[in-house]
Amino acid sequence: MDFDTIAAISTPMGEGAIGIVRLSGGDSLPIADKLYKGKHPLAQASTHTINYGHLIDPDVNETVEEVMVSVLRGPKTYTKEDMVEINCHGGITSVNRVLQLVLNNGARLAEPGEFTKRAFLNGRIDLSQAEGVMDLIQAKTERAMNVAMNQVEGKLAERIQRLRQELLETVAHVEVNIDYPEFDAEEMTLEVLRTKGGAVREDIDRLLRTAHQGKILREGLSTVIIGRPNVGKSSLLNSLVHENKAIVTDIPGTTRDVVEEYVNVRGVPLRLLDTAGIRETEDKVERIGVERSRKLVGEGELVLVVVNQNEPLTEEDQELFRLTEGHDAIIIVNKNDLEDRIDLARVKEIAGNRPVVTTSLLEDRGVDELEEAIRGLFFEGDLETGDMSYVSNSRHIALLTDAKKAVDEAMTAAEEGMPVDMVQIDITKAWELLGEVIGDQVNESLIDQLFAQFCLGK
Amino acid sequence: MDFDTIAAISTPMGEGAIGIVRLSGGDSLPIADKLYKGKHPLAQASTHTINYGHLIDPDVNETVEEVMVSVLRGPKTYTKEDMVEINCHGGITSVNRVLQLVLNNGARLAEPGEFTKRAFLNGRIDLSQAEGVMDLIQAKTERAMNVAMNQVEGKLAERIQRLRQELLETVAHVEVNIDYPEFDAEEMTLEVLRTKGGAVREDIDRLLRTAHQGKILREGLSTVIIGRPNVGKSSLLNSLVHENKAIVTDIPGTTRDVVEEYVNVRGVPLRLLDTAGIRETEDKVERIGVERSRKLVGEGELVLVVVNQNEPLTEEDQELFRLTEGHDAIIIVNKNDLEDRIDLARVKEIAGNRPVVTTSLLEDRGVDELEEAIRGLFFEGDLETGDMSYVSNSRHIALLTDAKKAVDEAMTAAEEGMPVDMVQIDITKAWELLGEVIGDQVNESLIDQLFAQFCLGK
Repeated sequence: MDFDTIAAISTPMGEGAIGIVRLSGGDSLPIADKLYKGKHPLAQASTHTINYGHLIDPDVNETVEEVMVSVLRGPKTYTKEDMVEINCHGGITSVNRVLQLVLNNGARLAEPGEFTKRAFLNGRIDLSQAEGVMDLIQAKTERAMNVAMNQVEGKLAERIQRLRQELLETVAHVEVNIDYPEFDAEEMTLEVLRTKGGAVREDIDRLLRTAHQGKILREGLSTVIIGRPNVGKSSLLNSLVHENKAIVTDIPGTTRDVVEEYVNVRGVPLRLLDTAGIRETEDKVERIGVERSRKLVGEGELVLVVVNQNEPLTEEDQELFRLTEGHDAIIIVNKNDLEDRIDLARVKEIAGNRPVVTTSLLEDRGVDELEEAIRGLFFEGDLETGDMSYVSNSRHIALLTDAKKAVDEAMTAAEEGMPVDMVQIDITKAWELLGEVIGDQVNESLIDQLFAQFCLGK
Repeated sequence: MDFDTIAAISTPMGEGAIGIVRLSGGDSLPIADKLYKGKHPLAQASTHTINYGHLIDPDVNETVEEVMVSVLRGPKTYTKEDMVEINCHGGITSVNRVLQLVLNNGARLAEPGEFTKRAFLNGRIDLSQAEGVMDLIQAKTERAMNVAMNQVEGKLAERIQRLRQELLETVAHVEVNIDYPEFDAEEMTLEVLRTKGGAVREDIDRLLRTAHQGKILREGLSTVIIGRPNVGKSSLLNSLVHENKAIVTDIPGTTRDVVEEYVNVRGVPLRLLDTAGIRETEDKVERIGVERSRKLVGEGELVLVVVNQNEPLTEEDQELFRLTEGHDAIIIVNKNDLEDRIDLARVKEIAGNRPVVTTSLLEDRGVDELEEAIRGLFFEGDLETGDMSYVSNSRHIALLTDAKKAVDEAMTAAEEGMPVDMVQIDITKAWELLGEVIGDQVNESLIDQLFAQFCLGK
């Protein structure tokens, strides 16, 4: 396809050693050459070379920056188009100025995700791979990165393509049955669906079974900490943050403007909610209150309830326990460095099947057990195995669920002796739904919406 | 010189389209080749080429990232050493993981500024150029960037070298005079110093005359806004910020952890102080109070005093005026959309030589005049002329001031008929001081200290 030439800043905004302004499109080289002064014009440079030189503002004939310009000629580029990457000294003013120069000389400012969108529209990657790129950038743990990398590499797309192929073959078989009236079409259709359809259904199911963990890896597990004042909520927070190197995400220029704190607990990315609240209230030894706790529990996928081993269980503790009923929760009996005044048996009884861990956060004891309990709650068995083909994206999960349903319906229809073309409709629907995962069957507005969630310059 | 191989993340931390991990040193290519899997090993790649491939964690034989690796062989590199730049998908986890892999395979984590320090130690740039690099990254306006760029290009260094050459020649002349006793050594020395020394002194002086503006361009002008409650301080702040695209600097990982807001008013970078204070107090229509205003005025290089045209001048207004005596200040008579109830003649009388500007910030009138007044207060004449050889760095200013003093002393000593070798000592001292500007004569701890102020990965 033939698009105009776009440009954007591709490095995060901030003072840094290197800033990159990236161009893609047929005029990338001519535009860069209007500004670049080096040994040779970029038009003469071979592809995949780095060219030292200066950027001159042609309007005032003034040296703007010292640059290294990467020349990348299509189709072996990210977008399959001609691309130019201008590496400059990474100051905010500098990078913005270089972008401005490029825009003044014929490039259009790229929309978020537009480079990746071109890679998709130009057929280099499919939609699931493009979505993997975004997941890779936003990954909060190495495991989440592996899942995303697998997707970028097209592993999910391969599985989806295989499933679609199976469905096509099923339809073909059914067609054959119709064309040869000497066979009993319905009997044959049923037979094909029982074997082929059943296999596809089982495969989709296998993918969907990874979805819960996949989604946690991708989006993080929203986690709240509740407990009466002065039981150690703040210590727990600090312990999690310090042991697991919190990533604070607060990116200007994106749609999110909330500060999110992520900690990586044994591969499980916890998205800590209300950390500001905990820090503030614990400093002042104020109470969060049962009402606020109830609200928090509603927002969290994991609830950490802290009680004080040094005090008898209070009515309020038990109230907090009750709030977490039906939720994934872990009971933390803290301050076991102090005298034991709690009825631990009673705590365990109330906790039921929710894990109970005793800690002394002050003395840094019990944290290992706590982290293992968190991991155990969400990941069964050994995660270290190489198979990282998780389905992690809500859009994919919804499509797979619907596709499975369509296959089910086809099978039921066949079993019930429905006309063969009715069965075909369901199979075709499943085939189309799977096509949406890889972008084979999607409408333009969905594509626009998906890429708009990308960061600028990607 | 032969150094070990260093590595660091060279792009700002944050989610971005591209992240770069940079290596420098003799083992850059071998280390990268332990991880890189592409068409050919990097060792076989030509210099200044970009190589597509994957990064594999050799410990677990797992694909970590899809990368573009730049191979840059010394000496034509930033550090003059072999360098490798690994461009990866720019997520926080991804970039950190790539760095970790590189560190696990033989590279050492670079200190802040260590790449530029090597460029200096390996003789590619002098100290003033290295300092220019840092200024370029931190530049808050295009003008400041131009000044820094000039310094990076070695323009300041050239001038300093020329001055040092003149001083050397002066010393040589004086030597000659001593060696040929048939001349009157003292008379000749005096003659040489009057002409040569005088010229050097004048040149240093010319440089120093740019220092005030240079320092403002480099560091920004600390600016405070004072005024009684509800006169429009907050509107003024918003007007400055919105019209001039504030740069908010808040960089994790650097020594500064204060949020600084910069606005670019006609090339003058204003560093706005107490913006949080203004926003809070104006929201609540609270008063900042005279005591707090006094403190602010003490911190600001520019004071903007706002009064309300719709009310008669109060005792408090006049008190605020008095606070700014002896400071660079501008009086802003705001709300001229409302009825005129202030005695403007009286305001101008109290203001004395401080500019008075009437505005309606509500209706966006008078902002141009205000901005022109700010510019006029700090920059005389036309700034658009090409000469950007400002001295902007406090270290340089101090050295130049001392060098000028040493030349002065030499000249005075000669005039007073002091022995010729006494005169020589002063000239040599000036020569040494100028040498410190370009790093010809500096001790190691100063160098360490200078480069430690750089950002990581530069």
